[in-house]
Amino acid sequence: MDLRPEAVRKLLVHLKRLPGIGSRSAQRLAEHLLTCPEEEVEALAASLAHLRSSVRLCSQCFLLTAEDPCPVCQDPDRDRSVLLVVEDPTTAWSVEASGAYHGLYHALLGHLSPLHGIGPDELTIDALVKRVASGGFQEVILGTNPTVEGETTALYIARLLEPYNVVVSRPASGIPMGGDLGAVDQVTLGQALTLRRKL
Amino acid sequence: MDLRPEAVRKLLVHLKRLPGIGSRSAQRLAEHLLTCPEEEVEALAASLAHLRSSVRLCSQCFLLTAEDPCPVCQDPDRDRSVLLVVEDPTTAWSVEASGAYHGLYHALLGHLSPLHGIGPDELTIDALVKRVASGGFQEVILGTNPTVEGETTALYIARLLEPYNVVVSRPASGIPMGGDLGAVDQVTLGQALTLRRKL
Repeated sequence: MDLRPEAVRKLLVHLKRLPGIGSRSAQRLAEHLLTCPEEEVEALAASLAHLRSSVRLCSQCFLLTAEDPCPVCQDPDRDRSVLLVVEDPTTAWSVEASGAYHGLYHALLGHLSPLHGIGPDELTIDALVKRVASGGFQEVILGTNPTVEGETTALYIARLLEPYNVVVSRPASGIPMGGDLGAVDQVTLGQALTLRRKL
Repeated sequence: MDLRPEAVRKLLVHLKRLPGIGSRSAQRLAEHLLTCPEEEVEALAASLAHLRSSVRLCSQCFLLTAEDPCPVCQDPDRDRSVLLVVEDPTTAWSVEASGAYHGLYHALLGHLSPLHGIGPDELTIDALVKRVASGGFQEVILGTNPTVEGETTALYIARLLEPYNVVVSRPASGIPMGGDLGAVDQVTLGQALTLRRKL
């Protein structure tokens, strides 16, 4: 006899769709949500209900933002000569947390993936080329992920940017800081050795 | 510069309050919720918003239920001579999934914990004694957790039930099925050996 009330079963279905949440975690979350102060559940529900309507994509750089243009595009103190191209808008949050970048961003909203029917028109590559063509940038850093699709996308964009007078670069690949050479995968280790730098 | 829109930061605060969700999982969940089909987020939000209002405690056994009395208390086919006492109402879901129990339930809504100010009056012990006193039960299984608080609660209830003509029992303690004797904690291993049974 399944004793879980209909509302709990529905919640479990929705929770299990979330990344990293299996049957067990979903049940644990549901138990917590059934026993915690009711205001907490209400606050979470409200925060989810307003999430998508209060966040949009910046019309210039396609980062997630509450206002358009986004704070980066509006900020007069950012270095407007460098553009960092990322796949996902949320990657910019981590880049900002690193404190190592002060230029502008451009989110592609994905990577080229012919097998999944994602060509250049499904991404914001057109807008990127127009931004670069309109001038002002000295360097475009292609920060797509170091995966087959990410590399392909970077090469594709690099070719499109050839006619414009900009330096095109990729972030360094190598052993993560604090990492263990023996524990790193072979491709990364090979890259790190090939691209070694003099001290 | 923190680029996360206010709505995302709020959501992260609420997500991080959930059990087993740290900073990294919260960020991953937020990213998913920002990029998945909007209907999924709406469905999750609605399901959370209705959760607490559509689930109450059964007035007889204190299980979580949509209707009162709950399906177990209403079911004429359940064995009304056995009562399983559990700490949390959700424990009954797992017991039902085991298929090994067909009697009635009683959820205490916690365990005795003087240090946290939880005495008998904070639990449903009074209601339990009244249920047993009203007769009809031949056995009461004290399924509180095998922890110090759970054992104390079980002993306390066992004493209260002494005047009534019922068998009072505890579920077996021992090595979990599929478990490894060497990997089991010492207390459990000790219990399992002391309580060994003849084949």
